[in-house]
Amino acid sequence: MVERNKTRDTHLRFHELKSLLTTIFVNNGTAAETAEILAENCAGCERDGALSHGIFRMPGYVGSLRSGWVDGLAVPDATRLGPSFIRVDARNGFAQRALAAADPLVRNALRETGIAIAAIRNSHHFSALWPDVEPFALSGYMAITAVNGLANVVPHGGRQAIYGTNPIAFAAPVEGAPPLVVDQASSVMANGEVRLQALAGKPVPVGTGVDRDGNATTDPHAILAGGALNTFGGYKGSSIALLVEILASAVTGGQLSFENDFTGYPGAQTPKAGQFLIAIDPNWGGSTGFETRLAHLCTRLIDAGQDRLPGARRFANRAAAEQSGIPIAQGELQRLRTLAGEAP
Amino acid sequence: MVERNKTRDTHLRFHELKSLLTTIFVNNGTAAETAEILAENCAGCERDGALSHGIFRMPGYVGSLRSGWVDGLAVPDATRLGPSFIRVDARNGFAQRALAAADPLVRNALRETGIAIAAIRNSHHFSALWPDVEPFALSGYMAITAVNGLANVVPHGGRQAIYGTNPIAFAAPVEGAPPLVVDQASSVMANGEVRLQALAGKPVPVGTGVDRDGNATTDPHAILAGGALNTFGGYKGSSIALLVEILASAVTGGQLSFENDFTGYPGAQTPKAGQFLIAIDPNWGGSTGFETRLAHLCTRLIDAGQDRLPGARRFANRAAAEQSGIPIAQGELQRLRTLAGEAP
Repeated sequence: MVERNKTRDTHLRFHELKSLLTTIFVNNGTAAETAEILAENCAGCERDGALSHGIFRMPGYVGSLRSGWVDGLAVPDATRLGPSFIRVDARNGFAQRALAAADPLVRNALRETGIAIAAIRNSHHFSALWPDVEPFALSGYMAITAVNGLANVVPHGGRQAIYGTNPIAFAAPVEGAPPLVVDQASSVMANGEVRLQALAGKPVPVGTGVDRDGNATTDPHAILAGGALNTFGGYKGSSIALLVEILASAVTGGQLSFENDFTGYPGAQTPKAGQFLIAIDPNWGGSTGFETRLAHLCTRLIDAGQDRLPGARRFANRAAAEQSGIPIAQGELQRLRTLAGEAP
Repeated sequence: MVERNKTRDTHLRFHELKSLLTTIFVNNGTAAETAEILAENCAGCERDGALSHGIFRMPGYVGSLRSGWVDGLAVPDATRLGPSFIRVDARNGFAQRALAAADPLVRNALRETGIAIAAIRNSHHFSALWPDVEPFALSGYMAITAVNGLANVVPHGGRQAIYGTNPIAFAAPVEGAPPLVVDQASSVMANGEVRLQALAGKPVPVGTGVDRDGNATTDPHAILAGGALNTFGGYKGSSIALLVEILASAVTGGQLSFENDFTGYPGAQTPKAGQFLIAIDPNWGGSTGFETRLAHLCTRLIDAGQDRLPGARRFANRAAAEQSGIPIAQGELQRLRTLAGEAP
């Protein structure tokens, strides 16, 4: 996790940060509508303390755009194939724009049929997944999404990378409280965390990954230099990575993680992959008082000793940022202004 | 895992074992149609070497039936609420009968809309989950299912049982090979395995569970006597248990795992819970050659060093049993005959 440098922080309002990021996207070949969606997403991650998907990612977005690997001008093709089935070709654009194109179709399907699937392919997802599901929970729905990526995770017992970090996220509404929002990689550690350990010259825990020869290592440099991460939880986590791979790539008709290859695009960082989303209206499932029941479940989880509910820290950070602004180090802000083409 | 006692095995044909089990179910208050479904399922687990859900479970089925906790005569109420949404009230009967009632509705929905959900509540699931998804994969669909149960698993960081072992299963077709079929508990170990370790007087691995006071223990007796299991893979596995709990109980309107209470039903063992199933036609998702692509993925997994594909061992056992019959110890067979009311 990227730590904030509290001593040198300045504070921006959300709309200020979003505006700055929008300028960066537009100035690097992104359509205005897409730029606004990505800036909202990235500024939201920064605001909520999900820093590994906040402004930390901007050089990667810019690198991919400048290399031509991702098309910032792509207009996604979203079709409602059936009453509950939405298929989206992102046309080599960003997944967030594709999901935004699917959103009204998904919501129509939910209202009319209680269930909706969005199968998105040819999409670049370079952010967290929780922003994709939280809005559905805020509307009273349960949503689940999964994304594959660049092959940098070995299957359990294996020695070569096959899976991406293959995150899965879900969200559900809770009466009288923020929604439950889970977002987790299927790897034992996020790739960004390994990079930070490497920068700090610190080893990673036993079981984190393998080197380029498939041998277990605690050296973050060896994991990054042609090695790979392990899945979380042994063979069971490996099964979750497999589930994500099948849903996000094979079902959608997207690329499998190991089919990603941007060697011809220097500077590219975004994985060209697929995304699968399912949203459910729990009232159709036979539930009465779904949100009340989840509140009961949450109370029991805390009473049982679980230290916090999934997503709670992000909502707390968001509330603090709404009060005091989003803390950003001066140097980071300067780098963003440079990316935006503003005079220093 | 229950081990076969090879030295005293006799061999039964599948139809012989199924017929014996059907008699046991019928003689203990199960409707003929339900008895056949349960016998097919249980004999199939035994045949495939999934022994912890084979004939090992018969005393538990019988105990629950005799106690009146489960209704062997229940006729499930399955309704297609919308083009892709099937809701089932199992009416306190077995989940397998409820799923059988939903099956034609699910398949109609798949043919017409590419996606189907079955939300089953008031159901007793006492078997493995793979038999519920494998048939969809054999028909070219991808299917996922989840079941909650009796609270015997603590959330990560907690000290009291909230979740059931909350298994999740999925299956997908593979060109030129048996389908991929994953079936795994969200607990670090299955409850049946803990019982076997207790019988053998052996400790369980560090991290398996807690005692009745919520303290970590490697004593299987302490886990069984009011203690609980941990989730697999730390907080990430705990999130999977949460996802299963929400889908299988809260979405379906079924009981939460910790709401299960059969103290008034001596001998009862089956959890009264909910089940969630989703099936997808990958052709609707944008995939072309889904089964070919999964065959490619499977090849890569094996090439990367994964030792076998999920479900492969069961298919190998099945093939062996079709050749040589299902190996069963003489003592086990005698116990089944006694349960069936046959003279010794």
